[in-house]
Amino acid sequence: MVFRVTVNGAWRATRTLWLLLLVILSVGICVCRASSLSPEESNSMENTIVTEKKAEESHRQDSADLLIFIMLLTLTILTIWLFKHRRFRFLHETGLAMIYGLIVGVILRYGIHVPRNVSNVTLSCQVNVSPATLLVNFSGKFYEYTLKGEINPTESKDVADNEMLRKVTFDPEVFFNILLPPIIFHAGYSLKRRHFFRNMGSILAYAFLGTVISCFVIGLLMYGCVTLMKQVGQLDGDFFFTDCLFFGAIVSATDPVTVLAIFNELQVDVDLYALLFGESVLNDAVAVVLSSSIVAYQPEGDNSHTFEVMAMLKSFGIFLGVFSGSFALGVATGVVTALVTKFTKLRDFQLLETALFFLMSWSTFLLAEACGFTGVVAVLFCGITQAHYTYNNLSPESQDRTKQLFELLNFLAENFIFSYMGLTLFTFQNHIFNPMFVVGAFLAVFLGRAANIYPLSFLLNLGRRNKIRSNFQHMMMFAGLRGAMTFALSIRDTATYARQMMFSTTLLVVFFTVWVCGGGTTQMLSCQRIRVGVDSDQDNSMSISDGSLERRSTKQESAWLFRIWYNFDHNYLKPILTHSGPPLTATLPPCCGPLAHLLTSPQAYENEGELKDDDSDLILTDRDMNLTYGDITVSTDGSGAHSSGGAAFSGIGADDLDRELTYGDHELVMRGTRLVLPMDDSEPPFSDPQHRLRM
Amino acid sequence: MVFRVTVNGAWRATRTLWLLLLVILSVGICVCRASSLSPEESNSMENTIVTEKKAEESHRQDSADLLIFIMLLTLTILTIWLFKHRRFRFLHETGLAMIYGLIVGVILRYGIHVPRNVSNVTLSCQVNVSPATLLVNFSGKFYEYTLKGEINPTESKDVADNEMLRKVTFDPEVFFNILLPPIIFHAGYSLKRRHFFRNMGSILAYAFLGTVISCFVIGLLMYGCVTLMKQVGQLDGDFFFTDCLFFGAIVSATDPVTVLAIFNELQVDVDLYALLFGESVLNDAVAVVLSSSIVAYQPEGDNSHTFEVMAMLKSFGIFLGVFSGSFALGVATGVVTALVTKFTKLRDFQLLETALFFLMSWSTFLLAEACGFTGVVAVLFCGITQAHYTYNNLSPESQDRTKQLFELLNFLAENFIFSYMGLTLFTFQNHIFNPMFVVGAFLAVFLGRAANIYPLSFLLNLGRRNKIRSNFQHMMMFAGLRGAMTFALSIRDTATYARQMMFSTTLLVVFFTVWVCGGGTTQMLSCQRIRVGVDSDQDNSMSISDGSLERRSTKQESAWLFRIWYNFDHNYLKPILTHSGPPLTATLPPCCGPLAHLLTSPQAYENEGELKDDDSDLILTDRDMNLTYGDITVSTDGSGAHSSGGAAFSGIGADDLDRELTYGDHELVMRGTRLVLPMDDSEPPFSDPQHRLRM
Repeated sequence: MVFRVTVNGAWRATRTLWLLLLVILSVGICVCRASSLSPEESNSMENTIVTEKKAEESHRQDSADLLIFIMLLTLTILTIWLFKHRRFRFLHETGLAMIYGLIVGVILRYGIHVPRNVSNVTLSCQVNVSPATLLVNFSGKFYEYTLKGEINPTESKDVADNEMLRKVTFDPEVFFNILLPPIIFHAGYSLKRRHFFRNMGSILAYAFLGTVISCFVIGLLMYGCVTLMKQVGQLDGDFFFTDCLFFGAIVSATDPVTVLAIFNELQVDVDLYALLFGESVLNDAVAVVLSSSIVAYQPEGDNSHTFEVMAMLKSFGIFLGVFSGSFALGVATGVVTALVTKFTKLRDFQLLETALFFLMSWSTFLLAEACGFTGVVAVLFCGITQAHYTYNNLSPESQDRTKQLFELLNFLAENFIFSYMGLTLFTFQNHIFNPMFVVGAFLAVFLGRAANIYPLSFLLNLGRRNKIRSNFQHMMMFAGLRGAMTFALSIRDTATYARQMMFSTTLLVVFFTVWVCGGGTTQMLSCQRIRVGVDSDQDNSMSISDGSLERRSTKQESAWLFRIWYNFDHNYLKPILTHSGPPLTATLPPCCGPLAHLLTSPQAYENEGELKDDDSDLILTDRDMNLTYGDITVSTDGSGAHSSGGAAFSGIGADDLDRELTYGDHELVMRGTRLVLPMDDSEPPFSDPQHRLRM
Repeated sequence: MVFRVTVNGAWRATRTLWLLLLVILSVGICVCRASSLSPEESNSMENTIVTEKKAEESHRQDSADLLIFIMLLTLTILTIWLFKHRRFRFLHETGLAMIYGLIVGVILRYGIHVPRNVSNVTLSCQVNVSPATLLVNFSGKFYEYTLKGEINPTESKDVADNEMLRKVTFDPEVFFNILLPPIIFHAGYSLKRRHFFRNMGSILAYAFLGTVISCFVIGLLMYGCVTLMKQVGQLDGDFFFTDCLFFGAIVSATDPVTVLAIFNELQVDVDLYALLFGESVLNDAVAVVLSSSIVAYQPEGDNSHTFEVMAMLKSFGIFLGVFSGSFALGVATGVVTALVTKFTKLRDFQLLETALFFLMSWSTFLLAEACGFTGVVAVLFCGITQAHYTYNNLSPESQDRTKQLFELLNFLAENFIFSYMGLTLFTFQNHIFNPMFVVGAFLAVFLGRAANIYPLSFLLNLGRRNKIRSNFQHMMMFAGLRGAMTFALSIRDTATYARQMMFSTTLLVVFFTVWVCGGGTTQMLSCQRIRVGVDSDQDNSMSISDGSLERRSTKQESAWLFRIWYNFDHNYLKPILTHSGPPLTATLPPCCGPLAHLLTSPQAYENEGELKDDDSDLILTDRDMNLTYGDITVSTDGSGAHSSGGAAFSGIGADDLDRELTYGDHELVMRGTRLVLPMDDSEPPFSDPQHRLRM
């Protein structure tokens, strides 16, 4: 009874608030319209004042446009809350953001008529090359203009026509340089490393091989489709094979944000989660670099769209160069941040620490872009490195702060992109919807995904002990949504006929996959009988306690390559970059003695019990930990160094590897929230699913 | 012994890291240089590819430029850490950021020679008005250009000359629209409301009257100075009286960020802190609106710089209109946010809650700008409203998150502005340093501040029981630093001779005040014998427990106007907008019964003990609280509603007012960190200075 009253109250209140927000939204749109109406009246005034006024008008207009998006996001947030509150799972926040975007797009397109802005001028010029900056002499006064881009001759009339719609159209580079980086960084930073590393081989196979396969399959199918269209006479412009491949590359970037949100909520099997998440994170990077190397495919000579081995090799070289360069840069800045946070006592000042972390992560992006690599890819690997090393050096408060900060940025950027996507279906002015191309594309996307998942899973299963079952495969097939990255790649260049058709088709693919595949996830899960409600921590402690079977499989999977990396990481990288791991003096050859001494943090020697500075209580707690749960012989890092100090140099034992893999995340959770800060709750350390979720 | 080793290690490590960062910084500058060198080579290639390449180059250049700033900030953070670590107080982070900015400015100016970029083109055009968008036909292809601004004819050569320096020059509007809002919002959001309200009368007097006095005193003195310069023949361009007044307005915005940081650290007397902080926060708003109304002073007729009553009145009307409009908008969005957070159960999903809070606060700015008001002012009052109402509705986690988020944004924006300030001394290309004007300006700034503080303090002391002593007055005089707002206002328009001279002079004023006045704060404090180490909480509980003397003075000061407001706030606004306060059914007249019932949150009725939803444990804890510290009869809001439920309608008692004023902040601290989340520490609730500081 009491409960009903509250819920009814909430309903009523929400309805009121919704109305309120709709009112605000319409006010926003009106303001928007008003500010674009006013310039006309001031034509007769003095010249400088006119310029000033115009700048002011344009600024007001921009504010009003942004306001519309903010209102859209606010509306989305309130609706999401309502959905979460009532446990609706058929529509994710991103799908919702798209719907709201669509609605506002329709209003802007058909509801508002802005009169022609007469002050656009077309000049002619004898110079051959378009300069980046233009000085124009208007009756004695000089004005500076900056290049915005090329415009189709047919389009040049529309520019003057539809000021309003053009205004709500962002520079596509905004997506790449402002909105994508936080999303991608967050993906890297929030990677569940334990499960990721356990399935690394498969993930790499899906991400690299799978994306390339998918790209070429889609490209070939689309080429067939385009050739057919040409013969039927449905094609009005050029569409080359490289265009088809480009299309293949951009729609190969999967983004199962919806699916993973539901997985998280339902606690679906961790391996499936790891496979999907790992694949989608990495294949974004692959798709970006792939598409840019396809664009770089430029055979010499007149006919620039024939096949040529040299150009092909060059493209391949670009792919490798850009990818490895971005990778190296991302890792490098991560390592620098780890070193800085290790060797300074910045942790005493959390604000400084968080700011430094944020700035260094951002600088990765800028550095990569400035060097001609791909910032998004660099940021991804920077995020993974930061999570693996730097995170352990941060103070507990900064760990929370950085996580929350990037979570928020990710949330805002993601919902902004999706609502913009909805908006753009109506406000973008060069859509080319070709039914045949659209149908072909849907088919190609489906087949491309199938050609990625099923054959690779078959091959991987030959080597895996812990097979990827067929229901997992179907689920992965189904979960291949297209999202932010696909959109950002396709809107980046919409100059040619082919690109415009691609963009329109891509939008439809994204809409379909997010709404239909995203919405059907729960049904698909129950249909495929994939177990839900698996607590990843419980799962683990069970697998530890009920024998060595699971452990074997992990060992089996983590083959020689991975084991070498793991040993290297544990013996050298972790001790150098963090406060954990064995002391370097024990792992490095004796000749490097002084260097090792310099680089090893005092905490690594804590077993000698001589340093009791403010960090050592962390290790003490770790040791307590070890005593309390001694029956499962967990050795977390701090005391792990102690016990394996002697054996470390001769290579780490297989059990150690397994243990650390299994408890890698535990250690993090413990440090972050329980042992160091005795504040969170009083539950036993091994059953804290709620907290994990909230992280 | 052990300690020395660590510190030495830290020193050595820091030196190494510094070197590393300097290397990175120089790499950044090199990359920057390299990217601006390359466009030359590609002149012979195809046209479209050239455009693409150019856009790419320009993007790389932009990344490299931003990278320089990021590196500057990183360097600043590391140095600040070192200073804090060793407790150097003579240089604040902002002063440091300026120094680093200066160094990089010198390097960019004299160290790097970028060859002329030949591709700038000057066109002539017959049209009279400069259009916002320009379509240029370069040999058959159309390119779109956007207006960047007017350029002096003399300058038009420089544009081509110094690409590099121009590149590191940001659009001045960036400061106003991106960097200032978080700073100002943070100021409002982190206002210590208890002390602010206690001294509100004085603060308003200093902020409004004081700023206007200071503006006119400086304006008149500068007009004298300029007239003198004209007669001596030192003036090369126009400098009108309105320009002088404008200068007065922009240098009247004080920003004692350095001083307050030191006050915080040393725990200086809370009343002095409140006076300075309150004044500086509000006078920023006054200065912005004042300067824009001075710009709007446009007498009719040919001679636009004579005195005219109508234009003067119009300016005054603009001042009032813009200020009150911005105020109303800011408060309105704050109220909407409070309502949304009160009536939805968003607090269950902290991410959504934080995102909503952030978006609503940002939308204030955009809404104000779109309506033609001043966003910065709106954001300030929005921040205060959010802190006063919305903050209480947020979940404890979101309270922390929002505080930390805005703290970080404030930190980054502030240091960015200050390092840009240093940079701009060398990279800005139209400096006009006129020794006479500079000396005059320094004198005027000094006298203007004096004419603000001393007479007003005298007048205020007539009415105040708790006098502003003369050492406080000297300290306030000394603490009138100029900072981010002054800079942003002066860089906004540097088109005319007068404005350029103002900008250069303003820079010098900022440098001087930040370094000299900021650096000398500790000395000044000890010289003026102002007591330090005052714990604001202890101070309070003392004043409560040792009798009614202090209480009287508070009551005296909170005169009729304030008391009316307080009663209104406590009886109506707080119950409507938050979960606290007496139920509206008790305070509103009976005829509004249903409405009151609708708006009152269930928590307000908790004394009837029928609703036990997830928020009520908060109130239970509050009540426990009340029991434990019953001897001082603290009644925090939740249970305060209980005890004063009957008396509330007939007007609140004077003691209640005093109590709540005194415990307003306590309640916040308790809810935020101790009672609801029993995690923070085990200290008794009334002695938590450290935590307060970290907040």
